Amino acid sequence: MSVRTAFFISDRTGLTSESLGEALLDQFNNLTFKRATYPFVDTPEKAREMAAVIDRTAEQSTLRPLVFESISNPEVREIIKTGNALHINFFDAFLGIMEQELGTPARNAIGKSHGISDTRRYDARMEAVNFSLSHDDGISDKNLKEADVILMGVSRSGKTPTCLYLALQYGIRAANYPLIPDDLESTDLPRMVKPYKDKLFGLTIQPERLQAIRHERRPNSTYAKIDTCRSEVADAQAMFKRHGIPFTNTTDKSVEELAVNIMQACRLNRRF
Amino acid sequence: MSVRTAFFISDRTGLTSESLGEALLDQFNNLTFKRATYPFVDTPEKAREMAAVIDRTAEQSTLRPLVFESISNPEVREIIKTGNALHINFFDAFLGIMEQELGTPARNAIGKSHGISDTRRYDARMEAVNFSLSHDDGISDKNLKEADVILMGVSRSGKTPTCLYLALQYGIRAANYPLIPDDLESTDLPRMVKPYKDKLFGLTIQPERLQAIRHERRPNSTYAKIDTCRSEVADAQAMFKRHGIPFTNTTDKSVEELAVNIMQACRLNRRF
Repeated sequence: MSVRTAFFISDRTGLTSESLGEALLDQFNNLTFKRATYPFVDTPEKAREMAAVIDRTAEQSTLRPLVFESISNPEVREIIKTGNALHINFFDAFLGIMEQELGTPARNAIGKSHGISDTRRYDARMEAVNFSLSHDDGISDKNLKEADVILMGVSRSGKTPTCLYLALQYGIRAANYPLIPDDLESTDLPRMVKPYKDKLFGLTIQPERLQAIRHERRPNSTYAKIDTCRSEVADAQAMFKRHGIPFTNTTDKSVEELAVNIMQACRLNRRF
Repeated sequence: MSVRTAFFISDRTGLTSESLGEALLDQFNNLTFKRATYPFVDTPEKAREMAAVIDRTAEQSTLRPLVFESISNPEVREIIKTGNALHINFFDAFLGIMEQELGTPARNAIGKSHGISDTRRYDARMEAVNFSLSHDDGISDKNLKEADVILMGVSRSGKTPTCLYLALQYGIRAANYPLIPDDLESTDLPRMVKPYKDKLFGLTIQPERLQAIRHERRPNSTYAKIDTCRSEVADAQAMFKRHGIPFTNTTDKSVEELAVNIMQACRLNRRF
């Protein structure tokens, strides 16, 4: 059986061509593709090697490869285009109409996307990562007042990865607070986060999914019992509702989706 | 002065339209744009609101907005297109030629990109995040053998954010080991990482930049002195060279670039 290859080729990290290519391929999810990413293809020489790789791949299959490209240098782009494939190139497709609209030529140079374009902004982003790490699982409350948002939820409801994603992608200072049984027995908000009610955002999760995650971590513990999970989740949700804290269910959401949900709900803006 | 607005509109998180749009805008970096992202625009009603926002923005400026769209539903797409702007829509531009090449219609449905498309794969990614956190700063060596890569470098050389990015974006289990003065005085590799020499990757950094980062953290400490930074960096680089450990300089690289560099150098494949 012949499988079609999808190439993601970039003069930088490949993140843009992958993102674009995956969104398009997903519209044909009845088909199977073999994926291959080639980052940092930024010289005519590398472009020639790339075209040769594409040609070899085309020869070995009855199905012509797809090539998703993010290459800003026109010379490099033209060489890659000699490879036998369907070329999906958004610079070719859109730069012309943008030049016309903006009344100025594109610089046709390697861009800074996904690089350090502005050191101060990049530092802010790394600072947000450090912030999230130092406030993981309620370790310290001394700087909670500097947090942009405080995620609250029971153990293993998805707080930590979401905090880290908010920091890495958007430079948002996200702290997190784990709701422990003592917190859940009270009708009040936990003492540590109470002064920051406006920054709180709750995460909830399907008890069955929580059980599976906890079981993976501590098999056959009380902590991983379905009854424990059910009652903790119910108590946490009751707390969110009682205090008017916005919350979302993490069960079927990726960290990317959660991050965007939280930013919308809390009206947070990226820091860079 | 009139500033042109760039809208990033998506029926999902907006990550693809931002990534595409920023790559294109960066080719016109002599101009200034005001940016606005609208995620989860997935119904005709939200599309009508969106078109109204675009129209209002167009009225308030002499410069027509740019709209970068990632919308899979053709009905929603058509409504947004009624907004007064230059519309950059890669589904419109590329789905047709892909349908022709692939011999099958696009499903024109909301995609799974940046969502949880496969729970098992998503779990592997979150597991990688947990792995990186539990192996941050050489805390534990008991599972170093499970690591895909071990980043080694002096304190504040960029190990932790890079590990987290490798985990979040690519599902790679990245551990890190901080080189402390004791390690740097020896000609041997640190005892803890020695058995895993093939997984080691070194991070180095310009001493002046390291000083600035350390000073931010512990002002006027010996740790932040330029002489300390210079000698630690020199010793670390000597260690990498002595033992043939691949390494890169993090000074001007973003975590995205570092992650891709490391994957290339260590021939790592994403885990999902």
